Amino acid sequence: MKSGSDFLLAARLCEIADLEQLARTADLVAIIARFIHALQRERGISNIYLGSLGSRYASERQRQVAECAAAEGEMRSHLATLDTESTHARNGARLFSRVAVVLHALDGLPLLRERIRLQALTAGEATAAFVKLVSGLLSVVFEAADTATDPEVSRALVAMFNFMQGKEFAGQERALGARVFAAGYVDLAGQQHWRHLVESQQGCFQVFADFSSADVRLADQAVQDAAVLGEVERLRRLGCTVGGELDPNLSHDWYRCCTRRIDSMKTVEDLLERNLAQLCRRRIDQARTELQDQRATLDALARPALASGVPHPSFGPHLERSLFAMVQEQSRRLQAMAGELDAVRATLNERKVVERAKGLLMAHRHMSEDDAYKALRQMAMNQGKRLVDVAQAVLSLADVLPAAQR
Amino acid sequence: MKSGSDFLLAARLCEIADLEQLARTADLVAIIARFIHALQRERGISNIYLGSLGSRYASERQRQVAECAAAEGEMRSHLATLDTESTHARNGARLFSRVAVVLHALDGLPLLRERIRLQALTAGEATAAFVKLVSGLLSVVFEAADTATDPEVSRALVAMFNFMQGKEFAGQERALGARVFAAGYVDLAGQQHWRHLVESQQGCFQVFADFSSADVRLADQAVQDAAVLGEVERLRRLGCTVGGELDPNLSHDWYRCCTRRIDSMKTVEDLLERNLAQLCRRRIDQARTELQDQRATLDALARPALASGVPHPSFGPHLERSLFAMVQEQSRRLQAMAGELDAVRATLNERKVVERAKGLLMAHRHMSEDDAYKALRQMAMNQGKRLVDVAQAVLSLADVLPAAQR
Repeated sequence: MKSGSDFLLAARLCEIADLEQLARTADLVAIIARFIHALQRERGISNIYLGSLGSRYASERQRQVAECAAAEGEMRSHLATLDTESTHARNGARLFSRVAVVLHALDGLPLLRERIRLQALTAGEATAAFVKLVSGLLSVVFEAADTATDPEVSRALVAMFNFMQGKEFAGQERALGARVFAAGYVDLAGQQHWRHLVESQQGCFQVFADFSSADVRLADQAVQDAAVLGEVERLRRLGCTVGGELDPNLSHDWYRCCTRRIDSMKTVEDLLERNLAQLCRRRIDQARTELQDQRATLDALARPALASGVPHPSFGPHLERSLFAMVQEQSRRLQAMAGELDAVRATLNERKVVERAKGLLMAHRHMSEDDAYKALRQMAMNQGKRLVDVAQAVLSLADVLPAAQR
Repeated sequence: MKSGSDFLLAARLCEIADLEQLARTADLVAIIARFIHALQRERGISNIYLGSLGSRYASERQRQVAECAAAEGEMRSHLATLDTESTHARNGARLFSRVAVVLHALDGLPLLRERIRLQALTAGEATAAFVKLVSGLLSVVFEAADTATDPEVSRALVAMFNFMQGKEFAGQERALGARVFAAGYVDLAGQQHWRHLVESQQGCFQVFADFSSADVRLADQAVQDAAVLGEVERLRRLGCTVGGELDPNLSHDWYRCCTRRIDSMKTVEDLLERNLAQLCRRRIDQARTELQDQRATLDALARPALASGVPHPSFGPHLERSLFAMVQEQSRRLQAMAGELDAVRATLNERKVVERAKGLLMAHRHMSEDDAYKALRQMAMNQGKRLVDVAQAVLSLADVLPAAQR
């Protein structure tokens, strides 16, 4: 028969196992972050290559394709080590399902590159294809953040995910601005899209700041070059706020200062990665020490009882109280952690609401994922509301749709 | 290297493993439900035994103690089969930690019974000890409900938990009413407590009804004897609403009609148990069939490509699209399920909020669990608010407390 003490220790072992799995997940997130960065660079370079009708960045593109392929290989190797036969992974179904979508999409990457090389598609189409790939990879990171069982690690993963997502919006803004300046003209839809990308970045970086430690926030401020930021703002004002006719020569300036900004973000991303890995190790060490302490205490509690011949698990009133305090304390601590975890994960809910509203539009209006997202964004712009509020409205509308339509 | 298809199947295998674990959890919940029912009967019988100064129910109590011990043995055997060495259990840490608290509390049960036999404590004290034991067992069921990864199973577990909790409030009301009638007098605090127990039952049974299928609701209505309910209401009105001097002879009437009501609830509980087990089996079968179908489709997709000598995983544009549809569909389905799951589990949040507020009061005001709960209940009564709203207010207050006090 197992006693309360057995389950006390078993609970701790579960905690350690959860943390060890989180550490592996953190590794995967770091590898995905590197791959996304390589894809973002390839997207930017491909844009210029296509925009210049193949006259510029041809060799840069080849180099970047090689770098990107290496990062992809690293990620695929890591994925191969994930024991897909082991079905115990927390949130395994959703995580693996996201990975399946990504791997499938990556199978199309060689063809995309070939078409870019042959200039068989526009810069806009190439950008859209890369955006989709990165979005799939970010979904894997999102699921990883959503699986965390430790509030501290969960905070770090939420900060990391939001930073990565913000950086991706910055990359999309770079591509959009480069195309708009190169075209020498921006229309209302382009301006709206631009503003949406700027606001989305701000939202992401705000969550990142809220969930980061002071040293990370300081590092983030330190790497940002005020001159670069000033230049980005100046060109944003010209392209996005003033609008109309634009000087095509600004395309290159825009691209250059955005790239410097995004590259400096990579430094922060690397710091976040290292902090996350350290945090996981620290939490594992801590939990292991606590397990040892608990075992030692239980042994000490059991000893006099054994000596006096009283069988386990009756330790006598005094020791009963110590054991009682231990099981109560652990139970309360785990509850408090669950509470904190819920609070941290609530920040992930906004994205989930938008994803679900998108899924609903795709299923019921037979829209593509892109079109569903654009429809939501357009509604938000027209109504002057936040994306998540519009998405919530779409979801609540679904409840009142006649059954036949659902 | 693993392909998208490998992860597509891996996601499905995870889903099946999750469902199989849920089925084992459902077994545990059923066994706990039987043990709680036995404890509730023992509590009632012990109450009358103590209230009659040992003149009544002495042999009934002995029989019930034996029955209860058998149910406890069954639960302990089942817990022993839970692989505590396997640390992969979803939500294992919290679940095992709750089990540790319960097992520890159960170690004190022989002593409690001996003191009851010797009439060394009051009926109120005995009731409080049993209430605490049942509350610990219900916490295990609550954690089990909180671990569910399948929305349908989660709904069934939420219904089951709320029914069990409602039945326990009914048991507490039976004990309180029996004591109050026996004493021949009810004061304001007694009336407030009584009203609280009635309202708590209503809240639980409402959630149970919301989350149950029509056949369960019908079965619930069918087993309720209108005459018994009428008698319960009549005596409630006398004891709880009118108050003041009471006829001590009503104690026996009250106890009898409450017991008939609670025994009929057990029939519904048994039905919920059977439905839950069936549901788990059905969902597992369904997921296995879908896995087979998916494997067959993937084989069919791969075959012509292999025949034509094109290496895996490039299936050609047409088959690419089929595979793409499959991975997209699965990902979307899992997302929709996660959305439903969040909605179902939101109903569990009220209890979590109350638990957390209780924990806060225990930690910062050095209150016992009982006193913390009573303090919350008193605040709710004084302010005419729901328990959960008061608990929420306590939690938000914690955020503004000076750091030194926290």
